Amino acid sequence: MINYPIKRKLQVKTTNYANLGMTLESDIEASNTYYLNHGIAVIHKKPTPVQVVNVSYPARNKAKITEAYYKTPSTTDFNGVYKTKYIDFDAKETSSKTSMPLSNVHEHQIDHLRNVDKQGGISFLIVHFRAYNQYFLLPSPILFEYWDMQFDKEKGRKSIPYSAFKEKALPIQFGYQPRLDYLKTVDQLLSSKF
Amino acid sequence: MINYPIKRKLQVKTTNYANLGMTLESDIEASNTYYLNHGIAVIHKKPTPVQVVNVSYPARNKAKITEAYYKTPSTTDFNGVYKTKYIDFDAKETSSKTSMPLSNVHEHQIDHLRNVDKQGGISFLIVHFRAYNQYFLLPSPILFEYWDMQFDKEKGRKSIPYSAFKEKALPIQFGYQPRLDYLKTVDQLLSSKF
Repeated sequence: MINYPIKRKLQVKTTNYANLGMTLESDIEASNTYYLNHGIAVIHKKPTPVQVVNVSYPARNKAKITEAYYKTPSTTDFNGVYKTKYIDFDAKETSSKTSMPLSNVHEHQIDHLRNVDKQGGISFLIVHFRAYNQYFLLPSPILFEYWDMQFDKEKGRKSIPYSAFKEKALPIQFGYQPRLDYLKTVDQLLSSKF
Repeated sequence: MINYPIKRKLQVKTTNYANLGMTLESDIEASNTYYLNHGIAVIHKKPTPVQVVNVSYPARNKAKITEAYYKTPSTTDFNGVYKTKYIDFDAKETSSKTSMPLSNVHEHQIDHLRNVDKQGGISFLIVHFRAYNQYFLLPSPILFEYWDMQFDKEKGRKSIPYSAFKEKALPIQFGYQPRLDYLKTVDQLLSSKF
């Protein structure tokens, strides 16, 4: 695992203030740009949905939104196409050393991932354990397993243990270009599936 | 082609003011909801990207956006998964009786559709000719053909003629549920391809 502190800093988009401190998201976006520019895949982050209440027109052809609110997204953040296949995922970070709290995942995201899974899409989470600087691809079926188990009175727990990531998830390598080569991990997932 | 004026009016979502007058878009969204609820496909409209400049916090946990601007989207509006396949398209309406002006399509959308096509995704436009109340699925390769031809000094024209839609595009049926059964047309496209 190599760190490039200076280069990374330079690569951070300075125009998108929403990304400040959102390292995992910007690492994924930089990887997506790399994939796109190299004809490897077409994967984009969906815009954050906003409920617009008021718009003014101070100049011609230039609408200024003066009142709006963030809405809860009904899907995951990332989707696209890779080698004819539909890819769909969300990115989660945790500072915990022992587990990823399931409260990081919203119920509508679970519903969405289940729907995608039923249509034969490739769906997963990318999870960053900050304490170890480790990245994992967690296939949806494993996520569903822990999600459903939390409602079990005896076995129920509100998190996925780090040990489960070590056993059942696939590690993603952090590098220079692309920063997070998660499609290499998707290749592993596909070859283990078929 | 049957019209259901009363029922259609009742079905229009009244909460999403952005959709007022955007019949094609709301017809597609209603069809997507039908597909989702019936386990047929998972296709969503991407949120309109907004550049947020100022946010205030009048109440705890409730961010109010006080200054923001619409951004040009870098992709098409709709994408998702249908029978393991990646689907990607945009919706266009024209009131012209003779052609669809190419100015309806943005260059970045062409770039995006080309990238999707290269990855083996299913990409197209849904085009509504208001004058005839006819809907067409225009496969990307035909769109590219006319797009590239416009730069030809001799053959160049800035629109796709209605006659080309009749000859080369696939008609989409307008009905009750789903309103626009464009996935049936995608099935025809797929069976003609393979």
